[in-house]
Amino acid sequence: SLAQKKYRVKHQLFLAEGKKAISELLHSSFELHSLFTTQDIYEAEKDKTFFLTEDELKKISRFSTPQTALAVFHIPPPVAASLSGLVLALDEVQDPGNLGTIIRLCDWFGVNDLICSQGTVDCYNPKVVQATMGSIARVNINYMDLEEFLAGAGPDRPVFGAFLEGENVYEATFRQEGILVMGNEANGISPGVSKYINRKLNIPQFGETHQAESLNVATATAVLLSEFRRR
Amino acid sequence: SLAQKKYRVKHQLFLAEGKKAISELLHSSFELHSLFTTQDIYEAEKDKTFFLTEDELKKISRFSTPQTALAVFHIPPPVAASLSGLVLALDEVQDPGNLGTIIRLCDWFGVNDLICSQGTVDCYNPKVVQATMGSIARVNINYMDLEEFLAGAGPDRPVFGAFLEGENVYEATFRQEGILVMGNEANGISPGVSKYINRKLNIPQFGETHQAESLNVATATAVLLSEFRRR
Repeated sequence: SLAQKKYRVKHQLFLAEGKKAISELLHSSFELHSLFTTQDIYEAEKDKTFFLTEDELKKISRFSTPQTALAVFHIPPPVAASLSGLVLALDEVQDPGNLGTIIRLCDWFGVNDLICSQGTVDCYNPKVVQATMGSIARVNINYMDLEEFLAGAGPDRPVFGAFLEGENVYEATFRQEGILVMGNEANGISPGVSKYINRKLNIPQFGETHQAESLNVATATAVLLSEFRRR
Repeated sequence: SLAQKKYRVKHQLFLAEGKKAISELLHSSFELHSLFTTQDIYEAEKDKTFFLTEDELKKISRFSTPQTALAVFHIPPPVAASLSGLVLALDEVQDPGNLGTIIRLCDWFGVNDLICSQGTVDCYNPKVVQATMGSIARVNINYMDLEEFLAGAGPDRPVFGAFLEGENVYEATFRQEGILVMGNEANGISPGVSKYINRKLNIPQFGETHQAESLNVATATAVLLSEFRRR
């Protein structure tokens, strides 16, 4: 049932599958609830470990190919975003793989706080957890009304967003401080949120044809975070 | 059967699903074989269009949620890579979503030639086609033995690759010419291919913890192509 958000919210628990993802989370600040495994490969708390046969594990797994383990962790209590330095905000990102990749990018580029609009896919969705490769334990994620958040951030704070008509990001000057907003896969940044963007940036297109319509939201985030950090 | 590589190779045909992907391909140099649709939304050649009910379309679709159309296109005959400018080479990239995203990046950043090792996932896999958002028609893709290709590229040609011990990419100087090699999701660049890398580059990690193990191959490609093009 933890594959569904309503049960994750009710029990305040989430699922992690795969040897690597589980190892990373066992070594993080996240608290283990229970571990189901076919092999004694973890040095986790023994009283929370249950040994299963491969067939039993397959029955509770989301994967058709057998994994060696499945773990249940407690969802950590929320920690307020600090808002210093560079903060990333997501406006209705829908694809779990994209959100997971973006959380991994935050971890790599040292972005501590990620703000997600209420309609962004849940970060404890098993596909998101999988795609973060353990980074979910090192990024502070808060879900909130994005317009309210931006309204409260103060008029002096730079709010960046990617727009086709924006300034060439390679030529723009900016400090490594502010809020970078990334939009929905199909519709970009919503009109309500756009009002708060005071620094529009554009990743230029290269080559002869210029027919590519857009970049994927995770790769655009990669380019923009790289541009902030290299300065 | 076109979801399987052996039948794609046998018939020299591939599948595309989804309104947007099909529209992009209909306006490309790719030749339509047949189009199956529930609605008369395309102005494609009428003699290749077959109208189906939603139930019929659902039966031949890979998706559980009904799509409006499914198209079959001819796989274009191979065009030799030109090797001028910047060429991207992939060493055993396995995930269809990653390959599709990388093809889309090539289109955006004006990389005309993509070389894939024989073990890289097939670019006409339906999930790859979907993830390219039409960019597959604008990037010339060749599958070949990557070591042979690099051996034949000549010793004077710069061959770039991402390595943890490489030079900081933000500080490195290089021309927009050469071959950039990206490696497998789990194992990176293979030892046989590594021999040919004469310019090792590193995307530095930021923040306090430095615990993120790596970047996803598509986001690392995004950062590196951006670094080539901004210069």
